[in-house]
Amino acid sequence: MTNEQRPYTIALDAMGGDLAPAEPVKGAVLAAHRHGVRVLLVGDPEAIEAELARLDHDHLPLKVVPAEGVIQEGGSPARSLRSKPRASIAVGVGLVKAGRADALVSMGSTGATMAASVLALGLFDGLERPALGGPFIGLAPTTSIMDLGAQIDCRPSQLLGIAALGCTFARYFLRIPNPRMGLLSVGTEAGKGNRQVQEAYPLFEASGLNFIGNVEGNELFLDKADVVVCDGFVGNVLLKYTEGLGRAAALALARSLGPDSPAVHQLNSIASTAESAGGPLLGVNGTVIVGHGKSTGEGIANAVGRAKDALAIGLVDAMRDELRLVLGRAGAMEAAPQGS
Amino acid sequence: MTNEQRPYTIALDAMGGDLAPAEPVKGAVLAAHRHGVRVLLVGDPEAIEAELARLDHDHLPLKVVPAEGVIQEGGSPARSLRSKPRASIAVGVGLVKAGRADALVSMGSTGATMAASVLALGLFDGLERPALGGPFIGLAPTTSIMDLGAQIDCRPSQLLGIAALGCTFARYFLRIPNPRMGLLSVGTEAGKGNRQVQEAYPLFEASGLNFIGNVEGNELFLDKADVVVCDGFVGNVLLKYTEGLGRAAALALARSLGPDSPAVHQLNSIASTAESAGGPLLGVNGTVIVGHGKSTGEGIANAVGRAKDALAIGLVDAMRDELRLVLGRAGAMEAAPQGS
Repeated sequence: MTNEQRPYTIALDAMGGDLAPAEPVKGAVLAAHRHGVRVLLVGDPEAIEAELARLDHDHLPLKVVPAEGVIQEGGSPARSLRSKPRASIAVGVGLVKAGRADALVSMGSTGATMAASVLALGLFDGLERPALGGPFIGLAPTTSIMDLGAQIDCRPSQLLGIAALGCTFARYFLRIPNPRMGLLSVGTEAGKGNRQVQEAYPLFEASGLNFIGNVEGNELFLDKADVVVCDGFVGNVLLKYTEGLGRAAALALARSLGPDSPAVHQLNSIASTAESAGGPLLGVNGTVIVGHGKSTGEGIANAVGRAKDALAIGLVDAMRDELRLVLGRAGAMEAAPQGS
Repeated sequence: MTNEQRPYTIALDAMGGDLAPAEPVKGAVLAAHRHGVRVLLVGDPEAIEAELARLDHDHLPLKVVPAEGVIQEGGSPARSLRSKPRASIAVGVGLVKAGRADALVSMGSTGATMAASVLALGLFDGLERPALGGPFIGLAPTTSIMDLGAQIDCRPSQLLGIAALGCTFARYFLRIPNPRMGLLSVGTEAGKGNRQVQEAYPLFEASGLNFIGNVEGNELFLDKADVVVCDGFVGNVLLKYTEGLGRAAALALARSLGPDSPAVHQLNSIASTAESAGGPLLGVNGTVIVGHGKSTGEGIANAVGRAKDALAIGLVDAMRDELRLVLGRAGAMEAAPQGS
């Protein structure tokens, strides 16, 4: 609980996301109001000022930091960053690196945010990639699932790193004292699963984490585990599947029951949890919150609030410490090959 | 369209599934009524006769074939089969092998059904394992997803085999003339995905199948593809996740809207599609329909009806031919290593 007194400064990628810059600017105004933070709006000054002019923001601690261009989804993020070194996400991460901002929030390309963050801020020792995750199922709002697409084709030691980050995230961020952590698999017995899960199992058992064994797909809804670990390929498929299913189910019910039926609203929340939640990029030496590209001002203000929470609880330091401890116990830091 | 005249004989594992033998026996009576098939009830004669005694089955072509014991879920199916060679599933498959039954239907252990079928009936040339799949999403009732757990850690050529089986299944069984087939992945571009998907992509392009590229999780609900191919690990997670989500969503709505609300019934159908559908085991030299362990008589009768349909359209021969063609085109039969 550090520095509760001084207001935090949050850099916000004003050009990132499908609804930029209008919604990020709205989000900044809301966040400054609600969360008592300073917000640095990073992007094209003219476009940002035009949006600000529509809103009541007198006396709010907002500042525009100029950047040139934005990195869109698709393509190679690393290549895009090289060709646009002054893009909003690069400038935003630079503010955190230089200590001019305490945290960064972006609704833009997740790949670009990851790449820029890793490049500028670096990863915790023992990691090769950051992790993405958190609760995204409306019906299981405290069950964190990770990785959601940052780490694909994980070695067992990578899965363990994700587990360590996830358990710290759940303990600090979701305030679950001793999170139950499981491996997503196709059967509950220790031998069940693909090679990756089978090889990770003994490592998880030796980790000192509260490992409860394998968790099957249906058990995500049965409050069996607080943190469920999977390869980013599987997690990303599940995340997008859940969004698609929520939207399709709400649409089907709206067609038969009318769009204002309470059932439709309830079902929409299955999909919207996935869309509105901004989660921290786990494993980088800095506080970076990544949100959904379709986020509106409301969701963006929430993401800024999450950045503030992460700072207030010292999430990054806690995760770094926990990762070192867990990888050390499992002997996984030694086992991890260099490079690759 | 062969042999529509003579009634088909279907062997039914009367001891398989959570509700055996009561529901399989009910299912047999229903199926004989509705589908005009002969049903061989395989299992403990006393238990089966006791269930039959409760039902009106005069003049129906039902026959009991004795077996000893049943193979439960869990453990090694191969080992269980060796220790119980007279188990109902083994006897049932034996009836097909001996030509005494045209097809087998089982709601028992999927692993045991697969192992017994492969052992007794053999696989198509070019396959190492059978495949499981079909439509299971209530909101996407004609989208087949496979594999659902039979083939885990697939090599690219295995994924291609699954694709060939799936496309034939969709064309013959679901009557989709030229099924659009996609690879489940985390991005639509060709380079996106894990190693497995990246390596499978060019093989799929060369297959002569109607390959439309990668399909993301949310796109399963957008009628983009008729057949979506994935590793059995991913498919099994998705299948169980869908069941769990459907059940949890229906429960949540029932709590807020009352159990008889139309929305609850509609949502229940998301889960029940997964539960009631029996699908053919793809790739074995014989017609074997595997159903959900919780199936009731109604679902079991439907599964028997599916067996009859598969026989009437010559599904097994069509799949064998298509597989040979596709693997030949992609050069994948040569590429597949022997053994392993």
